[in-house]
This record gives sequence, structure tokens and C-alpha cells, in this order.
Amino acid sequence: MNTPTTAQPPASMQAMIEAIDADLQARVARQPLPPKLIEAVHYGVCGGGKRVRPVLTLMSCQATKGDVEKARCAAAAVELIHCFSLIHDDLPALDNDELRRGQPTLHVRSGEAMAILAGDVMMSLALTWLTEDNLDDATRARLSHELATATTAMIVGQVYDTLGGVDESLDKMNQLEEIHRNKTGALIRCACRMGALCSQADEATLEAITRYGQSMGLMFQVVDDLLDVTQSTEVMGKATGKDESAGKMTYPGILGLEATRQTIEKLRQDALKALERFGPEADGLRDFCRFMAIRSH
Amino acid sequence: MNTPTTAQPPASMQAMIEAIDADLQARVARQPLPPKLIEAVHYGVCGGGKRVRPVLTLMSCQATKGDVEKARCAAAAVELIHCFSLIHDDLPALDNDELRRGQPTLHVRSGEAMAILAGDVMMSLALTWLTEDNLDDATRARLSHELATATTAMIVGQVYDTLGGVDESLDKMNQLEEIHRNKTGALIRCACRMGALCSQADEATLEAITRYGQSMGLMFQVVDDLLDVTQSTEVMGKATGKDESAGKMTYPGILGLEATRQTIEKLRQDALKALERFGPEADGLRDFCRFMAIRSH
Repeated sequence: MNTPTTAQPPASMQAMIEAIDADLQARVARQPLPPKLIEAVHYGVCGGGKRVRPVLTLMSCQATKGDVEKARCAAAAVELIHCFSLIHDDLPALDNDELRRGQPTLHVRSGEAMAILAGDVMMSLALTWLTEDNLDDATRARLSHELATATTAMIVGQVYDTLGGVDESLDKMNQLEEIHRNKTGALIRCACRMGALCSQADEATLEAITRYGQSMGLMFQVVDDLLDVTQSTEVMGKATGKDESAGKMTYPGILGLEATRQTIEKLRQDALKALERFGPEADGLRDFCRFMAIRSH
Repeated sequence: MNTPTTAQPPASMQAMIEAIDADLQARVARQPLPPKLIEAVHYGVCGGGKRVRPVLTLMSCQATKGDVEKARCAAAAVELIHCFSLIHDDLPALDNDELRRGQPTLHVRSGEAMAILAGDVMMSLALTWLTEDNLDDATRARLSHELATATTAMIVGQVYDTLGGVDESLDKMNQLEEIHRNKTGALIRCACRMGALCSQADEATLEAITRYGQSMGLMFQVVDDLLDVTQSTEVMGKATGKDESAGKMTYPGILGLEATRQTIEKLRQDALKALERFGPEADGLRDFCRFMAIRSH
């Protein structure tokens, strides 16, 4: 794992991340795809990353007393969707980023055509993975709907972020939330919900996990905005200070540093409150929430 | 409809195409997406096209005595996937086409960023549509798997076509078939299979529809290769003679015109033979097969 901050995740999470990495690597390797496409997908998926989304899927499955093995396909799929979005977002026509996790982005390394096609195939593979593992039909159908819908929202967020078009009758704070809710929030919320769906959680339980996921999704982006201002390029492994120079709206830009930190604290409390109904089986989610919040310190 | 050949489809097909167009337009219009993204998707989906794939889905549903209304989501989804692939294939980094159905391609009209993101969202929307309509969970799960798998194959075909990498130990004819089987064949086969799946067809029936779809998928591409040589740009509404000038393998290039026409005749017979077990309810598929074959005359 290549954590782009000085804060380290809880030890309990480390083993989970290693298992996710191994599972992703094995799934990618066994696809019957042309070697150069496999290689590009592997580069895009297996080059590190915090694995926030699949960790949330597995932990949400644990929190809802499910069998984590049954949630592995959903965990792998949500990470594949995240990695696809990074590859397309990095393209010259979009964010034009040449560095990701301290390494050349896929289009720099393998060309734009491959980056476009590898991203495309990662989305279709993710949806295939959801219907391959040993799950009942109802869960498969719900997971497919959940992931496809969240992917749509994520792309909408990228449209807002890159091409504009967010409702300008909203104030700046609400415009920013609308962008983030789509671009980052929807997939993190989906990661949590898919974990609960793999446990056959009842509606009230699913609703609690959804509220946790919503707070975490927004918190993740607010922390990211903050780190873009406060951390150096070297520590982050990618270009920083970029939001400001690109004139993008950010939480620190609108609220200032102190109120941004307060927002994070509020979201931390909301996320933990959503977990009140759960016992120690949700400690993974609680620890992860605290870890996410202190990344900004 | 903007048929790019002088041959006209059977009259029975025309009403079906109009209903597909109306359904697609309505589905796109009701997506809760930013207006400029809706507009781009609309441009990519509703600008004409032969609607080969959704027609095959609906006709395969009819042939297997299903309720065509239940197959509408699959018909719309497979066309959306096809249109997404055209948009990404036309991008400057891939085929760099500026003209499609006689109109500017999406990236020429709305910029590369929008073309990439609109293509992406069309894939995720297609998968959402499959799980939205009133189908049972088992059918939803099978359709999702079917469409995601065929989409993967289609992208693999585009990788072969654009970036190479097809197994060179195969002779040229088999290399070409491997490219076409993925790039065009898989989605046409999938279109037929989804129609049968929406009818809850038994395995033997599904298998017959699959054989029909495989012959049709290959025939479609062989006819396309032939038209690229024999038709003018004006008639086709897109650049022609392009395969030859790009040095791409084609059926006429490998076999010559006469043997290419014989291949089409053989595939026509194979497709019709696969339908032997069906009664008049499969006449739509039979007519379509004959229509496809005469496009090359």
C-alpha cells in the first residue's frame, strides 16, 4: 500500500488491504483478454492506492454480520470502477495529469488509445465480476443496479468538475456539495451499501449503513481538498495545489482552513452516529472513520 | 432511419425501428443528468442508425414467443452500448473519425472531454436500464452478465483493431475472424441472446438463437467490409475505402470480392438453418437475415 499521507491506517485494516490487493491481482490475471490489455488494466488497478472503497465494502459486510467472502466480488468491482475513473480523468482531454501515486499515468505510459480502452474494459469487467461469484440472483441484480447507478453519478460529477454545468442558482457551498456528492460520494456510499446488500441486511440496517457511507463520502472529499492545500507534492505522490491554480471550488477555498476542519469533525460525528445501532462488529467502520478524519491533521 | 445503403429494410421492421427510436429517446430524456450531458448522449444515440442490435433483441424475443415489451430495456441497452462504442472508437486517439451517419462525430461537435464522458455514462446507463424494468431477478442478473461480457469482448475487438495484439500464429483469415468475432460479433450475438433470455427460453432454444446470432454477427461485418470497398462515401454517410488505405485486414482484401460474397451466402444459410426449429414467429429474424445479406448486392 502506498498511503499518500503520513497517517497510517489501523493495523486491522492492513491485512484486509493486502487480501483485497491479492484478490484484485488474481481476478485481473485470470481474465481472457489480450496480454497488452491485461497489462494495462493491471497497471491501472494494482499500482497501490488506499483501497478505501473495497475496505468499506468488506467492513460494511462485517458490520451487518455477513460473510466477507461473499462481498469480495463487490469489493473488487467497486475498486475497478474507481480505478477506471482515475484513468479516464487523467486523460489529456480531461484533467491532463501525468502523475498518479508517484508513477506515470496510464496514457503517458501506454498511450491515449490504450488508456481509453483499458478504462472502458474496467467498467464492463466490474459489472461482470458482480454477476460471476456465488451470490443469489436477487443480490446480483441489486448489486448491478447499485454499482451502475453510482458509476453514472460519478461520471456526472466528473462532467461538473471538468465541464461545469452544476446548478448555478445554488450557493457555492451547495454547488460544491453537489459536485462532490456525485464525483466521490456516490461510489463511497455504494461501496458501503454493496457490503450490506451482500449480507442481506434489512432495510433499516441498509439505511444506517447508507447514512454512514454518505458522511464518509463527503468527508473523504473534504479531507482531500484540505490535503491539496496543506501537503506537498512529494508526500501526496501526485500534483497538489492544483485545485487552487485551476480556480476550482474547494472547501478550504470557500470556508477557510479552520471551518473546513470543523466540517470534517462534524462529518466524523455523523458517520459514527449512524453506527450507533451496531455492536463491536462495526468497529472496523468506526476505526476507519477516525482514521479518515485524522488524515487531515 | 438513415440506412447507409440503397437496400431498404422490410416494411415490418420499419415500425419496430420507429418504436425503438421513440423508446430510446424517452429513456434518455428522463435520465436525471446535467442538460449538456443529456444533450450529448441524445446526439450520440438518437442521430439515426440502423438499430440492428435492438431489432435483433426484439425479434429474438418474438421468435421465442416472449412478450416484446419485456425486452425493450435490453433492446435499448444494447443499442446504447453500441452507440457508446462508436463515440469512443471515433476519438482522435483511436480511429480519428470526424463523420458518422453524415454528421460530425461527438468529439468534433462537443469536444473530446464530453465525448469520453458521454461514452462512459452510456455504458453505465445501459447496465442500469437492464435492472430497472419489470423483470424477475434471475433474468436481470443474466442480462447484466450477458451485456457486460459482450461489452468486454467488443472492447477487446477494438484493442485488436486499433492496437494489434491478435494471435499471430493464426492464419490471416482466422486472425480477422477473431477480431470481428469480438469487435462486432459478440454484441450482435448478445442482442439475440438477450431477446431469448427475456422470453425465459429453454437452453436448446437459447442455443439455436445463439447460433443465429453468431452467423449474423459475422455476416454483418463481412458485409460491412464489402461495402467499404464497393460503396461511395456519399451513399454510406461515412468515410469509405478507409480500411484499405489504413492497411487493415478485410474479407475482400484477403479473399477477393467473389469469395467474400460466397462467405456472406454461406453465413446467410447458416443463420437460416439455426432457425429451422422455429415456426412463423421467427419470420422477422429470417427476413432480417435476408435483408442483411442483400445489402451487399
